[in-house]
Amino acid sequence: MFNYLHGGNLERAMEKYGISSEEIIDFSANINPLGFSSKIREDIIKNLDRLSHYPDPECKEAKKEISHYFKIDYENIVLGNGSTELIYLIVQTLKLKKVLIPIPTFCEYERALNNNNVSINFFKLKEKQDFLVSMDEIIPQLAGIDLVFLCNPNNPTGTFLPKKEMLTLVKEVQKRKIFLVLDEAFIDLYEEESLIKEVKNYDHLIILRSLTKFFGLPGLRIGFAASNSKLIKKLEAQKIPWSVNCLAQIAVREVLRDEKFITKSRSFLLEEKEFFYQELSNIEGWKVYKPSANFIFIKLLGNISSEGLMGQLAKKGILIRDCSNFRGLEEGKFIRVAVRTRKENIKLLEELKLILR
Amino acid sequence: MFNYLHGGNLERAMEKYGISSEEIIDFSANINPLGFSSKIREDIIKNLDRLSHYPDPECKEAKKEISHYFKIDYENIVLGNGSTELIYLIVQTLKLKKVLIPIPTFCEYERALNNNNVSINFFKLKEKQDFLVSMDEIIPQLAGIDLVFLCNPNNPTGTFLPKKEMLTLVKEVQKRKIFLVLDEAFIDLYEEESLIKEVKNYDHLIILRSLTKFFGLPGLRIGFAASNSKLIKKLEAQKIPWSVNCLAQIAVREVLRDEKFITKSRSFLLEEKEFFYQELSNIEGWKVYKPSANFIFIKLLGNISSEGLMGQLAKKGILIRDCSNFRGLEEGKFIRVAVRTRKENIKLLEELKLILR
Repeated sequence: MFNYLHGGNLERAMEKYGISSEEIIDFSANINPLGFSSKIREDIIKNLDRLSHYPDPECKEAKKEISHYFKIDYENIVLGNGSTELIYLIVQTLKLKKVLIPIPTFCEYERALNNNNVSINFFKLKEKQDFLVSMDEIIPQLAGIDLVFLCNPNNPTGTFLPKKEMLTLVKEVQKRKIFLVLDEAFIDLYEEESLIKEVKNYDHLIILRSLTKFFGLPGLRIGFAASNSKLIKKLEAQKIPWSVNCLAQIAVREVLRDEKFITKSRSFLLEEKEFFYQELSNIEGWKVYKPSANFIFIKLLGNISSEGLMGQLAKKGILIRDCSNFRGLEEGKFIRVAVRTRKENIKLLEELKLILR
Repeated sequence: MFNYLHGGNLERAMEKYGISSEEIIDFSANINPLGFSSKIREDIIKNLDRLSHYPDPECKEAKKEISHYFKIDYENIVLGNGSTELIYLIVQTLKLKKVLIPIPTFCEYERALNNNNVSINFFKLKEKQDFLVSMDEIIPQLAGIDLVFLCNPNNPTGTFLPKKEMLTLVKEVQKRKIFLVLDEAFIDLYEEESLIKEVKNYDHLIILRSLTKFFGLPGLRIGFAASNSKLIKKLEAQKIPWSVNCLAQIAVREVLRDEKFITKSRSFLLEEKEFFYQELSNIEGWKVYKPSANFIFIKLLGNISSEGLMGQLAKKGILIRDCSNFRGLEEGKFIRVAVRTRKENIKLLEELKLILR
C-alpha cells in the first residue's frame, strides 16, 4: 500500500525520535512561522460560549468575509474542513472516470481518487526540466480525461505557473468540458497571480484555497473552494453538515481583516525565502530549486539519504520533510524545508553544514 | 428534493423570524442545557498555541482518553468530525447495495446513502405502536440487506430498546453477515445500556457516539465510532486527514475527566426530563411520548400545525423542532423539544399554555 504520511506530524516525530514538542522546530509543515494574528486569540476567547451551539452549516458569515476579501461572489464559495475536505468532496460529487495528475504533487488527490475507485493517469514531470509544468506537454495528455488536479505553486517542488499561462489551460479544458481543480493553497505570496476571480466565467474551473497555511492556523481546519455557482450548489448538496467548526468560522473574519498581519507576513516571507534560498544554495552537495512559496525543495547529490538526513536533524529537534513518499520522485533523494524565522533558518543552516561537510 | 434541515440552526431562525441570537432559547437542538465543563474553557485558552500545528491525524491522545473512559480497546476506536462524519465514512467505505432504515429517524443516514447511490428500504415504524422498534418486525426485514442503521434512543421519537433486546438483533446480523450501525448519540443518560463494550466480539457491529451533545460542545465537532479492529482499520484508511481539529482533540480529555460535570448533568437531565414530561403531558390537545433521552417528542392533535406553533413560539424567541421533514411522519403534526433548564422549561410551558388554550 502506498504511504500517504504528511509533514507536520509532530506526534509521530516525537514518538519516533524521542523528542518533546517544546524542543521541535518544524520545517516539515509549510505554515507561516509568524504564527497567527493575535486578534484571533482574543476573538476565540470572547466567543467560547458559541461552542454550545451547532456551527452554521452554511457558513454564511465566513462566506461573506471571503467574498469581500477575495472580491468574488458569495454564490461562488463553499467552505470546508481545510481544503482537504473539498478535494474529497469534489471527487465524490463529480462522477469521474479518469483523472490526470502531474506528479510529484500533494498526495491527497490520489488518495481521494483511489478511495472512490477513479482511475488515474499520472503524468511524470521531468527532473531535467526542474519539474516544471509546460502547457505543450500537459495539453496532449487531456485526451479521455474528466478532470485534472494541478497544484500551483506545486507542493513539494515549489514550481509556479503564472496566470497568463494557466489561462491557456483553463480555456483548453473549458472547450473540452474537462474539470480543472487548481489547488492554490500556497499562492498567498503572489495573490495577484491567483485565478480565483475567473471562476464565474468558466463551467469547469475549481480553485482550492487554504485559510490556515499563510494565516498560520492549521489546527483549526478551514479552507474553501471557488467555482461557478452551479457547481458550488452541487458541492454544497453533497457536503457533510457542520464540518467547519464554530471557532474556525469565527476566525475567518479576523484572519482576513488583519491587514497588518497579512502585509507583514507577506513581506517577511518574500524576503526570508530569498535569504534562505541563497544560503541553502551556498551549501555544497545538493541542488536547491528556486522557490515560489514558503518552502524550498532540495535534491541530495551526495551519499546521505533523505531519511538519514531527516534522522540526524531530528535528533537535534529539527524536523524536515523527507519527500520519499511523493509519487514520481526518486526515493531517498529529495527533501522539503519550510521557510521559518531568520533565527530558526540559521539554526538549520548551521546544523546542515555540520552534517553535510 | 428532500429537505434535510436540522434543529439548532440559529442563523436560519434569526433570519426567518427576525430575532437576535441573545434572545433565543433553543429547544430545537438536543444539547446539554448546563453548557460544557468549565475546565474545557481553561484548557482551550491554555492550548491556543496548538492551532499553529496540524492536528494529530491519528488522534492518539483523544483515543487513549476514550479507551480509558469507555473501557474499550484503543484499536476499537476511530474519531470523527462529529458522529456525522463517521456516518458518511461508513457508507463510503463499505460497499453497500441495500440498506434498511426504520423510520422516522435521523436523516443523515438517508442523505449519506443517497449521495453514494445506495438503495434504501425504509421500514415505517407504526404510530399505533408508539413508533417502537420490535425485533419481531425488524428481523423479517433483513432479507437482502447489507446494513441496518438504528438510532437508540431514537431521534426524534425518543423510543429506546434495552441492551438485552438489542443483543438479539446483534446476534442475528452477525449470523447473516449484515452490518449494524447502532447510533447511540443520545444514550448518555443510560450508559449501562450501551453496547459499546460488545464491539470486539462481533464482526458487523459499529457503535456511533457523540462527544458533543451530552457534553454540551456541538460547535467543536467530535464524535467516534467503536467497532472491531479490522473494520476500524478499514475506516481509518478511508478517512480524510485532520478532520478533527486540535481544540476538539484537546477537549476530549477534560470532557471525559470532569466526573463532577458528568454526574451533575446526568442526574439533572434524568430528573428534569421527568418533570418536563409530566408538565407537558398535563397540557391538553396533544400526545406526549415517554422520553428516554434529553428531548421529548409530541404529536399535535388539535388544529394548530407544527409549523404554526413553531412560528408563534419563535416570535417569543423560543425555537422548537418542527418534525415535518422527518420521513415517515405525518407532515405538520409532530414536534420535538429538548429538555432545558427548569427556568427555560417553565417559560416554554407558559408560552405553550397561552398558545394552545
